[in-house]
Amino acid sequence: MENCITFFAADSFSKDLGIKLISASQGRAKMELTITEKHLNTHRTVHGGVIYSLADAAFGVASNSYDVPSVAINTSITYMKAAKAGKLFAEVREYSKNTKLGSYIVEVYDQDGEKIALFQGLSYRKTKREYEKN
Amino acid sequence: MENCITFFAADSFSKDLGIKLISASQGRAKMELTITEKHLNTHRTVHGGVIYSLADAAFGVASNSYDVPSVAINTSITYMKAAKAGKLFAEVREYSKNTKLGSYIVEVYDQDGEKIALFQGLSYRKTKREYEKN
Amino acid sequence: MENCITFFAADSFSKDLGIKLISASQGRAKMELTITEKHLNTHRTVHGGVIYSLADAAFGVASNSYDVPSVAINTSITYMKAAKAGKLFAEVREYSKNTKLGSYIVEVYDQDGEKIALFQGLSYRKTKREYEKN
Amino acid sequence: MENCITFFAADSFSKDLGIKLISASQGRAKMELTITEKHLNTHRTVHGGVIYSLADAAFGVASNSYDVPSVAINTSITYMKAAKAGKLFAEVREYSKNTKLGSYIVEVYDQDGEKIALFQGLSYRKTKREYEKN
Repeated sequence: MENCITFFAADSFSKDLGIKLISASQGRAKMELTITEKHLNTHRTVHGGVIYSLADAAFGVASNSYDVPSVAINTSITYMKAAKAGKLFAEVREYSKNTKLGSYIVEVYDQDGEKIALFQGLSYRKTKREYEKN
Repeated sequence: MENCITFFAADSFSKDLGIKLISASQGRAKMELTITEKHLNTHRTVHGGVIYSLADAAFGVASNSYDVPSVAINTSITYMKAAKAGKLFAEVREYSKNTKLGSYIVEVYDQDGEKIALFQGLSYRKTKREYEKN
Repeated sequence: MENCITFFAADSFSKDLGIKLISASQGRAKMELTITEKHLNTHRTVHGGVIYSLADAAFGVASNSYDVPSVAINTSITYMKAAKAGKLFAEVREYSKNTKLGSYIVEVYDQDGEKIALFQGLSYRKTKREYEKN
Repeated sequence: MENCITFFAADSFSKDLGIKLISASQGRAKMELTITEKHLNTHRTVHGGVIYSLADAAFGVASNSYDVPSVAINTSITYMKAAKAGKLFAEVREYSKNTKLGSYIVEVYDQDGEKIALFQGLSYRKTKREYEKN
């Protein structure tokens, strides 16, 4: 969990949003967010970008929980239900991984356990040379 | 464009992120974001959640540019290139629309015209009754 | 299971491909396919269209396992590993469902239990009137 | 076009489905399919697996139109309208490409030019060593 904490601590955007890392291990992570006014959209429900960012933060930590720097190359998200207040959680599990690609499933739910969104992420695992070129 | 401006003005999250509406019309919109420190991730590139939110803001305005309240039900995004500094733009066009569903394509690119991400959004067009129940 | 068998029996394309329904219940289904020469692509591995169709057949049966006719509106699939010979299986579970939309996850794996693909499907549940207009 | 014809000629599954290559060049391809009874699903409309396979065939030819063997790693498809009879077409264009990944957009439409589906494909470009290991 040590390296996951360090990795996440350097994520300015997630910090700015108010996302908290609850737990993490190789290929897994759990995040939490308390909904505030700034997270809302015009419909007065939590913005899709916030829900996505919460899921993506979990995905980012899990896919970078090894010694290999990983970047998202494709993600898809399905929204089940609007969220309005209280807390949101994102929990990720690694579905598969080979030398170059990793596939992850993230579930986003609210404090009553209601399903909010389902996120699928594909990551590309960079070689040191690819990472330095960036 | 009037109703698009009103719609977007009420979007707390996009405002907080620094997203600006440049132009909009029925089924179309263009957004701009100037990258700052708070938009970065651990790799020191723009966070996927920021790029997604920029694309999603354009998608939201375009899909709500009619008299019908629309919500995102599924989106997918492919990332081409990391963004680091300067400005990002998102431009959306409506690909198709029927009474219940709308499909949109959003291109995200940087100030040099380099492709950053390609976003596809599917929206559900609510009846008044569905919207009020929310 | 009765109505699932009837539903699947009328699916000309799946039958032509050689897909077999192994089991089904409300929101669930399992399919099987024995790989033959006609399922291959230029790389001499099972064609993406075959793997997709196997997953889609499971998704179709599960999403039509209620009294409501459902159609696919969006699907995404991630490929983990090429398949070459032997049997493939697809197993679907319903992730969520409301009056209009259903979300499903399908896992495709080979006879050794190796993960081949992960499929996510979103279905639109039609009213009788919408279905007849079709 | 020569190498695209050769590539496609070896695709058993597409041939079995009745898919025809109309034109191709680097990063582009156009396919055609005449709908027959065997392409239908239980709703008596063209099976999602057929529409997907048509789009995927175009994607496969375009992404393999260079000297580098490419495989699909992720695709998503949105369905706009059911197809019933006549001809279907799939047209692909390359959206972006770097040394390892390629991104493609495929439009599927019927003989009246009606939009049937929108497909997005991400391909992984293999090194010779990766391809031989397969």
